[in-house]
Amino acid sequence: AEAGDAIGVENFLSKLGPNDQALALNRLDEEHYCAVLTLLPAEEAAEILRHLSETQAAELVDSLEVSDAAAIVQEMTSDEQADLLGDLDDDQAESILRALPPEDAASVRELAAYSDDQAGGLLVREILRFNQKSLVHEVITTLSENAEEFRDYDVQYAYLTDDDEKLVGVLPMRNLLFAKRTDPVADIMILDPLSITASMPLDELRDFFDAHHFLGVPVVDDNHKLLGVVHRNAVDYESTRAAENDFLKSQGIIGGEELRTMPLWQRAKRRLSWLSINILLNIGAAGVIAVYQDTLSKVIALAVFLPIISDMSGCSGNQAVAVSMRELSLGLVRPTEMIRVWLKEISVGLINGSVLGLLVAIVAVVWDGNPYLGLVVGVALCANTLIAVSIGGTVPLLLKRLGFDPAVASGPLLTTVTDMCGFFLVLGLATAMLERLI
Amino acid sequence: AEAGDAIGVENFLSKLGPNDQALALNRLDEEHYCAVLTLLPAEEAAEILRHLSETQAAELVDSLEVSDAAAIVQEMTSDEQADLLGDLDDDQAESILRALPPEDAASVRELAAYSDDQAGGLLVREILRFNQKSLVHEVITTLSENAEEFRDYDVQYAYLTDDDEKLVGVLPMRNLLFAKRTDPVADIMILDPLSITASMPLDELRDFFDAHHFLGVPVVDDNHKLLGVVHRNAVDYESTRAAENDFLKSQGIIGGEELRTMPLWQRAKRRLSWLSINILLNIGAAGVIAVYQDTLSKVIALAVFLPIISDMSGCSGNQAVAVSMRELSLGLVRPTEMIRVWLKEISVGLINGSVLGLLVAIVAVVWDGNPYLGLVVGVALCANTLIAVSIGGTVPLLLKRLGFDPAVASGPLLTTVTDMCGFFLVLGLATAMLERLI
Repeated sequence: AEAGDAIGVENFLSKLGPNDQALALNRLDEEHYCAVLTLLPAEEAAEILRHLSETQAAELVDSLEVSDAAAIVQEMTSDEQADLLGDLDDDQAESILRALPPEDAASVRELAAYSDDQAGGLLVREILRFNQKSLVHEVITTLSENAEEFRDYDVQYAYLTDDDEKLVGVLPMRNLLFAKRTDPVADIMILDPLSITASMPLDELRDFFDAHHFLGVPVVDDNHKLLGVVHRNAVDYESTRAAENDFLKSQGIIGGEELRTMPLWQRAKRRLSWLSINILLNIGAAGVIAVYQDTLSKVIALAVFLPIISDMSGCSGNQAVAVSMRELSLGLVRPTEMIRVWLKEISVGLINGSVLGLLVAIVAVVWDGNPYLGLVVGVALCANTLIAVSIGGTVPLLLKRLGFDPAVASGPLLTTVTDMCGFFLVLGLATAMLERLI
Repeated sequence: AEAGDAIGVENFLSKLGPNDQALALNRLDEEHYCAVLTLLPAEEAAEILRHLSETQAAELVDSLEVSDAAAIVQEMTSDEQADLLGDLDDDQAESILRALPPEDAASVRELAAYSDDQAGGLLVREILRFNQKSLVHEVITTLSENAEEFRDYDVQYAYLTDDDEKLVGVLPMRNLLFAKRTDPVADIMILDPLSITASMPLDELRDFFDAHHFLGVPVVDDNHKLLGVVHRNAVDYESTRAAENDFLKSQGIIGGEELRTMPLWQRAKRRLSWLSINILLNIGAAGVIAVYQDTLSKVIALAVFLPIISDMSGCSGNQAVAVSMRELSLGLVRPTEMIRVWLKEISVGLINGSVLGLLVAIVAVVWDGNPYLGLVVGVALCANTLIAVSIGGTVPLLLKRLGFDPAVASGPLLTTVTDMCGFFLVLGLATAMLERLI
């Protein structure tokens, strides 16, 4: 079926839901994939790309012929175009832009300057806009004559501008129902509607839609010219992506998502760059053990407990990191409130550290028979749990304050410091009471 | 201001944005918090609760007087009511339901039977519904007479039912614009619209809205009676929450989110239940070290590398877990495709394991001077990286297939198995070539 049979492919795909389409295409290699996309009408190809992850869509369009790619891009809405072109190779993006009609290319260029997490990267230009001088019946006629084109638009509101394209009002479409047909629409519009600028970041957009029940908000430039509308669902979608990316980053998948269809070298390289930093930090922390080799060789049982202390402190610390990240994203904590967070964490750390310390102490005493071994590992784990939750709770706030991404850097920082402290506590305490341990 | 001055509080809060309100109230203790809520008009109190996290809102309403709580609940939309009552203590929820007007209580009860991740838990009953026999001008009159009540509704579509309340059509409001006022609305409706059942899970809702450009979809019961509408933004919101919860769960915050305003014991207990399982798994894994104490006491340098091997294998494995979780949620991989995922992972594991193994081997040789120590730790780390990515990539699929939550269980399972294998590899190899290491 992949050998050039356009109608066969189209029929086959049309029987599948969009999710199964994505799954089916995900199994093809790149060459066949591109073949399928070019065989299909541009509109359907655009629809398929819409259901792929953005990373995957960008990869594919990168490997298409420029003319095919440009045809597909023309079928997309303005926010999709901006997203896609932002993810492409610069060369390919430039070639596609040159293949587009000049006025389309200009407007895409304008939006591509904004990132996905700004209003400018999320807005759609496909909105109903009328001059405020239009009459009610003119608007109704335009709507009925262009019903096909407006089918996919959000038609709850129309946006009214003056002769300079400046936003002057918003017209709820239902107001048209109750209006006299010969009135100017300006009579039934909402004057001076709320609007935002194209540079508004995602956080503030989320707050905006939290505060207002609108489904969309008009975006204006510095001269109050109407650029387009950001819809609530675009903001929700980007928020989901941001949350999912934070999860990936915290687990060491940095620099955008990884799909198993990506080239092996790219996947290995990206994972490895994060692992290399971690192994260096790890080797640094393990240096503490090397310093105490003498103690360790005399009380070899300690070696059993070192990985336990390291892992458990990591677990406790990561819980605190997760809560801080969540409170930051909910806006329940400010990056400056480190003391408050710290006080909340040490109380939990004291309880959990005591329980975990007691547990590991009992295991040590039962296994080894020496109560002092239990004392050393129990006290060390308890103290290190306190350290771990203190660092885990406050480091995300600190990183945020310093302008770093807490999702990426909190984990490695946390485990390195807690490992060092943990090894130091166990082996330092053991050295101090070495006579009772032997 | 907290001492009973309702107007003062209202003025103060009204000056703040909703996010700052949440932050300000988050700083109050429970008693003052409740006082503020009861002082405000119920409608404003409902608005404030809407901006709190659900956990926090539930906590507060739990501690309000039943009559105050019921007044606030009445001001909420049906999906908010279902959410809130599902999160309350059973006793408090029951008392509030009894305090509501009987017909309200019945409809809330019906929706509360569905969880947040089903269509029934996400639908709103506040929709425009008309009998299909209504005439266009009757609908327009109803709309204009109830403009105030309908202000917050999504008024892009009205839903038409027959005399038995069964869904028969959907009426795009703009069609009213072009219709003759004396026609029945049935003439301009879309017949047999797509609808879903109240039990549809979140995954399928996401797929549905991926596949269709609708802003909402009508929900019907088994007899095709219209229950309400699920909006796209409710689905997007729940998806964000699910992604954020997966992040929390993977870091050991289980059983719903934790906020630092919650009681200390609750926070400590919930974190501890997860830590306890982990420490037992950890102690089990460390048992492998205890078996090889003889080897370890002869080559004490090995103790330095055990935590490195354990940590790094955890890192590599977690990357694979994260990619699998992501591909599962994107629908790009089926839980049965374990072999395909495994093949994709071992190729990455081979590359990254070799690099990491070489790195740690060089460090060992430079530090200790014995090339065989480098060989042992290098080969062990390389092999264990392969094991870690194999387990990390496939375990989420397996857990999902068996009906467990991969976000909760993947991490602990992964680290336990990789720790055991890692310790066994290092110490087993070292024992085999003990003569060359001493």
